[in-house]
Amino acid sequence: MREGAFGNARALTCRECGHEIPLGPHYACSECFGPLEIAYDFPAVTREQIEAGPRNIWRYKALLPVPDDIEQSPNMEPGFTRLLKAHNLGRTLGIDNLWVKDDSTNPTNSFKDRVVACALSAATEFHSKVFACPSTGNLANAVAAAGARAGIKTVVFIPSNLEKPKQVNSAVYTDSLVAVNGNYDDVNRLASEIAGEEDGWAFVNVNVRPYYAEGSKTLGYEIAEQLGWRLPDQIVIPVASGSQLTKVHKAFQELIKLGLVEEKPYKVYGAQAEGCSPVSVAYKAGVDAIRPVKPDTIAKSLAIGNPADGIYVLDICRETGGAVEDITDDQVREAIVLLARTEGIFTETAGGTTVGVLKKLVETGQLDPTLETVVINTGHGLKTLDAVSDQVGPAATIDPSYASFAATGIA
Amino acid sequence: MREGAFGNARALTCRECGHEIPLGPHYACSECFGPLEIAYDFPAVTREQIEAGPRNIWRYKALLPVPDDIEQSPNMEPGFTRLLKAHNLGRTLGIDNLWVKDDSTNPTNSFKDRVVACALSAATEFHSKVFACPSTGNLANAVAAAGARAGIKTVVFIPSNLEKPKQVNSAVYTDSLVAVNGNYDDVNRLASEIAGEEDGWAFVNVNVRPYYAEGSKTLGYEIAEQLGWRLPDQIVIPVASGSQLTKVHKAFQELIKLGLVEEKPYKVYGAQAEGCSPVSVAYKAGVDAIRPVKPDTIAKSLAIGNPADGIYVLDICRETGGAVEDITDDQVREAIVLLARTEGIFTETAGGTTVGVLKKLVETGQLDPTLETVVINTGHGLKTLDAVSDQVGPAATIDPSYASFAATGIA
Repeated sequence: MREGAFGNARALTCRECGHEIPLGPHYACSECFGPLEIAYDFPAVTREQIEAGPRNIWRYKALLPVPDDIEQSPNMEPGFTRLLKAHNLGRTLGIDNLWVKDDSTNPTNSFKDRVVACALSAATEFHSKVFACPSTGNLANAVAAAGARAGIKTVVFIPSNLEKPKQVNSAVYTDSLVAVNGNYDDVNRLASEIAGEEDGWAFVNVNVRPYYAEGSKTLGYEIAEQLGWRLPDQIVIPVASGSQLTKVHKAFQELIKLGLVEEKPYKVYGAQAEGCSPVSVAYKAGVDAIRPVKPDTIAKSLAIGNPADGIYVLDICRETGGAVEDITDDQVREAIVLLARTEGIFTETAGGTTVGVLKKLVETGQLDPTLETVVINTGHGLKTLDAVSDQVGPAATIDPSYASFAATGIA
Repeated sequence: MREGAFGNARALTCRECGHEIPLGPHYACSECFGPLEIAYDFPAVTREQIEAGPRNIWRYKALLPVPDDIEQSPNMEPGFTRLLKAHNLGRTLGIDNLWVKDDSTNPTNSFKDRVVACALSAATEFHSKVFACPSTGNLANAVAAAGARAGIKTVVFIPSNLEKPKQVNSAVYTDSLVAVNGNYDDVNRLASEIAGEEDGWAFVNVNVRPYYAEGSKTLGYEIAEQLGWRLPDQIVIPVASGSQLTKVHKAFQELIKLGLVEEKPYKVYGAQAEGCSPVSVAYKAGVDAIRPVKPDTIAKSLAIGNPADGIYVLDICRETGGAVEDITDDQVREAIVLLARTEGIFTETAGGTTVGVLKKLVETGQLDPTLETVVINTGHGLKTLDAVSDQVGPAATIDPSYASFAATGIA
């Protein structure tokens, strides 16, 4: 590892017992098996330094485990996506001041480009020879694309019964897509096995996970900067493993500590689909333990039945005065169409879940509609077209004449 | 029309006879039926003014027919997409200094968001009550989404035999998708008929076309700014109607006149698919007239058999020392995979055409591989997945065990 390979990162530290080890391709504490995360020695960082940086996540490089020359390495240049004022959606839901953070316009159309960019930097610094992941969708796209651009061999593992269009959307970037006879859990287990057997493999969400996960902090940094260096009052975030929600909270806390935003209370809300809602169920039951479930929902990118960071999500949502809520698949579909028709943003099922949960939170009085609120859209609807293909379609089919059109009454 | 509704635009002027008329919802010269375009009285504009603007096309508002407060109107905030240094693609093609302007990361994943944003501004200033277009794809998405966000009624006309996924990708944004029994030409004719019969309809590519077309200039402005306020030596642009190519050239000329970049020679190249190559055929034959063709190519977003701006494309490519070239559908497919596997960019068939033509131009000695070159990617591969679904797929299908994986030889 070269000097400064991880910027201001100091060590890996255990989230459970606090044990520290040097930076390396590790993810579990050698003392207690708790999850490792990155600890930093941050220097003074100013708004002006950040604003002078590139228009992508590397403007925050001082706050990430990446080298100072990270922009020089070929990478996807993700992030700094739009924060859109959602006048129409806000009016429809009765929220005065609503924003959508739209990560569907990232290079491979989901927030995964952020985390994969940080994982790629770590893999490069560790001289990994293969960049890999198990995935059924967004992560596979992001890994295969980023690896292609960086010129590192990628191997992407998917369940063999994955729909053909989803296979194509990853296979176009890599000649080493591997179909595995089994479900996602089988694929995931195989990935851990290979990570243990092979030297020089960086599995983004396994052995370089601590670096990877830090990428989600950039969502939080961007929201604060795009609001004019302020934190929102309330934020609604989808929950799969729970990592994104915990990292956005971490980002807000870091910005406060660094003096980049003023300290203020904010409420964090988690969104799940009813068919995979272990965190929401625990939240509502008032318990601390997450009981794993077998997922059954159209929100496949949120379908993690045993979420690694679920207990931290519970802590954060409870401490900040937020909540965790879930909605049905039909409500997910409705919310996708609602967001498209009010703001012109076509979201995938994960975003439908988040917007639908926002709606339910207002209706049930759990979210204050007079406070400034941000909702995160993590991915693009083109990836989950089937979810709404029975919901929307032509209003009329006509002959190519003005008379035929006039008869529809649409004019 | 309110004061300043069109910014620094002065009048509509005929591209053929120079006749000027006041700004209004007109598109054909009343004297000679030539195409109208926007004439401006530009004030002094500085790089600093532009750089202080928003990170979207409105940073160039002083050079567009839009009001000074355009950012205040709800809009899709398109543009300022990535200009990526294409190290790997350049190496593969033998080009020393190659850039990809990647418009697939626009809000609805194509360059059409730029032109539609300008059309929407005009429609708003003309107090249009309906925002409409005939389209088979990218334009339909962009119009339906932008209209939804702006809160104006949209009506989008498509051929009734359009594939279901493409219908969904527009219908999700609008409750007034109209399927027309006929081909695209029939749909287009119907649109012109409705534009003539109904008051208050803004058909983006018909009666507000002069405003709409100006949006493509922003591609040229951005490339120059992102290169550090310089023009490239060579640029390769896809040709459908030919409007985009002529507008990028216009943008470069304006930047020179305004003193925002240094004057220098640059070569403009047009890219077509062999199955719809009327401009390329005329270029190669050394003639000035375009003979219309019946399109037959997978590059559907380029399939305009009678391109309105084809003759201007010929002029520009000849005057600048560029060329117009075409490639087969198989070469389009190969180029899509090539771009994905070298740069991690998944392009639609139009981008495949452009990259494939770039390759052919180098191979045939028509483009100088030692000069700085930009190639434009206009849209996202998720919209034309079928084009490559037979080209790419899993390298192996295995059982979920390390032994099964090791046997593939991929490690």
